[in-house]
Amino acid sequence: MKEKQIPYKIYLEESELPKAWYNLRADMKNKPAPLLNPGTMKPMSAEELEQVFCKELVAQELDETTPFIPIPTDIRDFYKTYRPAPLVRAYYLEKLLGTPAKIYYKFEGNNTSGSHKLNSAIAQAYYAKNQGLKGVTTETGAGQWGTALSMACAFLGLDCKVFMVKVSYEQKPFRREVMRTFGASVTPSPSMETNVGRAINEQFPGTTGSLGCAISEAVEVATSNDGYRYVLGSVLNQVLLHQSIIGLETKAAMDKYNITPDIIIGCAGGGSNLGGLIAPFMGEKLRGEADYRIIAVEPASCPSFTRGVYEYDFCDTGKVCPLAKMYTLGSSFIPSANHAGGLRFHGMSPILSQLYHDGYMEAVSVEQTSVFAAAEQFARIEGILPAPESSHAIKVAIDEALKCKETGEEKTILFGLTGTGYFDLVAYQKYNDGVMTDTIPTDEELEKYVANLPRPTKTM
Amino acid sequence: MKEKQIPYKIYLEESELPKAWYNLRADMKNKPAPLLNPGTMKPMSAEELEQVFCKELVAQELDETTPFIPIPTDIRDFYKTYRPAPLVRAYYLEKLLGTPAKIYYKFEGNNTSGSHKLNSAIAQAYYAKNQGLKGVTTETGAGQWGTALSMACAFLGLDCKVFMVKVSYEQKPFRREVMRTFGASVTPSPSMETNVGRAINEQFPGTTGSLGCAISEAVEVATSNDGYRYVLGSVLNQVLLHQSIIGLETKAAMDKYNITPDIIIGCAGGGSNLGGLIAPFMGEKLRGEADYRIIAVEPASCPSFTRGVYEYDFCDTGKVCPLAKMYTLGSSFIPSANHAGGLRFHGMSPILSQLYHDGYMEAVSVEQTSVFAAAEQFARIEGILPAPESSHAIKVAIDEALKCKETGEEKTILFGLTGTGYFDLVAYQKYNDGVMTDTIPTDEELEKYVANLPRPTKTM
Repeated sequence: MKEKQIPYKIYLEESELPKAWYNLRADMKNKPAPLLNPGTMKPMSAEELEQVFCKELVAQELDETTPFIPIPTDIRDFYKTYRPAPLVRAYYLEKLLGTPAKIYYKFEGNNTSGSHKLNSAIAQAYYAKNQGLKGVTTETGAGQWGTALSMACAFLGLDCKVFMVKVSYEQKPFRREVMRTFGASVTPSPSMETNVGRAINEQFPGTTGSLGCAISEAVEVATSNDGYRYVLGSVLNQVLLHQSIIGLETKAAMDKYNITPDIIIGCAGGGSNLGGLIAPFMGEKLRGEADYRIIAVEPASCPSFTRGVYEYDFCDTGKVCPLAKMYTLGSSFIPSANHAGGLRFHGMSPILSQLYHDGYMEAVSVEQTSVFAAAEQFARIEGILPAPESSHAIKVAIDEALKCKETGEEKTILFGLTGTGYFDLVAYQKYNDGVMTDTIPTDEELEKYVANLPRPTKTM
Repeated sequence: MKEKQIPYKIYLEESELPKAWYNLRADMKNKPAPLLNPGTMKPMSAEELEQVFCKELVAQELDETTPFIPIPTDIRDFYKTYRPAPLVRAYYLEKLLGTPAKIYYKFEGNNTSGSHKLNSAIAQAYYAKNQGLKGVTTETGAGQWGTALSMACAFLGLDCKVFMVKVSYEQKPFRREVMRTFGASVTPSPSMETNVGRAINEQFPGTTGSLGCAISEAVEVATSNDGYRYVLGSVLNQVLLHQSIIGLETKAAMDKYNITPDIIIGCAGGGSNLGGLIAPFMGEKLRGEADYRIIAVEPASCPSFTRGVYEYDFCDTGKVCPLAKMYTLGSSFIPSANHAGGLRFHGMSPILSQLYHDGYMEAVSVEQTSVFAAAEQFARIEGILPAPESSHAIKVAIDEALKCKETGEEKTILFGLTGTGYFDLVAYQKYNDGVMTDTIPTDEELEKYVANLPRPTKTM
């Protein structure tokens, strides 16, 4: 079929927006392993999970068979305030690189949270509101998830308590103010407000915090206050379900113009963006209908896929959360404060972990100075200041495009541009001043953290 | 004609984007008064203006008769990287206010400069590049224009020197880093690098600067270095010409859905946004084809329209620039550092000044605490953190919508949402902390600044 003229940006019509999320697990032969109760080391029941999460979200968390789950009208209406996200053809980047490759990116940064996180935040806040709750608690790393949740809660009139990883809280005071403007309370983690926080502060004085630690604090506050539940911006199956909107829109836009990607690239911290972007493509791959090369990109300073182990582990430092089977660096692993932005989680989405384990996708790790070089190159020619997280995908997309230049292959490359870097200027300043460095953990360090994994599979 | 179902956001197709800018002057019976040479007090010739500005831009500056000026293909292609800007129906804000009014806003913040300024920056940089120049100099207040120009220069490979009003430079260090990421050099103004800057620093020690002062410095550097010209982000006729893209897109989107605004509202600093937004609507009004109520909103702390005089005045504090006939507070007026964000210019676009003088539009001034209250209300329900500048328009749009609630009138209100407030979190923090105050100059203060206007009309 003749290729239509591709515009710089493809916006779907409102009527073309997805009406259901896609549940990738329905097409997985090997389902992701169940979450385990940290006390009993047995699979968590719905009742147990409902102590921590909203009821409807627990149902989504456990649903392994329904391929399409309708998006409630109220959520679809909220989506319309900032979606569709554009699918952009990177004509200028292609020209700059001199590559025969065709590069596309799905840009999720055109909303005030600055990233794709709002897609799941509004869904989780909606179900909490519907359940009659007073509010929700959560953690945030780079601040994108916390901002997104604050926005969703402000819109629905829910209370919102955010524990923000201390290093981000200090490097990103303006993130705190955005969340306050949307009415949220923000506490640097580890704090002295929770048992978990006090214990971690005592054990590691001066720690700059981690997502795993902030999660423990938020869960403790949710489970010890009436009318509150905990919500999480990544890792969980429910989050990947909501984020499938990214991939579904992308695929609809590509189908409209008869575009088929050869390579799909996304950054991976907990997996929310990557899992969402690849969902419908991976579905086709699982069903044997199409093949795509899928690449997860992670920071060399927090290399869960490429250097972690595939084992059961705690999702949080305080070990109050359920255990998940995933690629992990160990729940006590805290990436260097030198590492900019998000992608700081020690583990990885159980869905993506299973898919990676089964060979359906690849993973690479990249160093942050090369990531910022790619970010700057991209910003100057494409006119978007990317988030450091997103720039991991840019780096590898450029690498793949340059390989095409060598081989002459006209591959179609799709990557996820998850967000903007307006709140990452401290890191950009370091890069601009030439003082940014890379931090790569040694094998000895990594072995230390995984030496004492709970390994419940041996005791079950 | 039956009203079509209006989506939350209207995006034009690429093929529907304007191919020419609209030159409002062609339809004005009373043309704006010419710029005067500060030495001779005679109208500036093209040759004289070309010492300061690029040749092609001078032609646009002086063209009072051509209604439509084609947009070069290269600029249109660049526009496609971040345009069309969406026209948004504020369904949620309407519901929150309980108003029968229909509220629309044209959102210009979906690009890394964070505002509409990029529309003129790329045009001015393009013509400078075409003329074979090495680079351009400019001033920036809130930082939006400087960021936009840095982006345009990075894209075209031009050198970019920005003088940034000192109060913004100090309050917005991250703005500086964005500009640096795009390769610009940024100097706080008044600096010690120019004659004008040294003189102002000596006369007003500890001054926090003003746009008028930064303009003088940028012009001095441009005119004393080979291969450089000065570019300006507002006030000038050429800028309003480029910004007509805002109004043209808005009108095309409204026409597509048979929407006719009753009231059009824009914030006014130098007039670039307002002039661009209203251009095609004002054209109809001037030609007697339609009538619209058009409202300029300015800060009470810098009230050029509502409390200034309509006289010839210098555009800059250093008095090195041409004089313009405009509503002015006097070129030595410097708004209080207490005033947040942009809209700090002592004067106003000569085109808008003439139109206001001739009764084609209204003006109101609003205090910043009420502006931030409106901004927060808007952010929480519409999901966009607005720039303080844009929030002036939001405030008045809400006021007008509430009047409709009282009267029961179903008016259609259109306002310009010029940009995002991601770099204005210091001001938001003040508001969140309850320590923001208003600053309104007294009549005695204002009289002092206009007492010694050059008044060349008396000596010509």
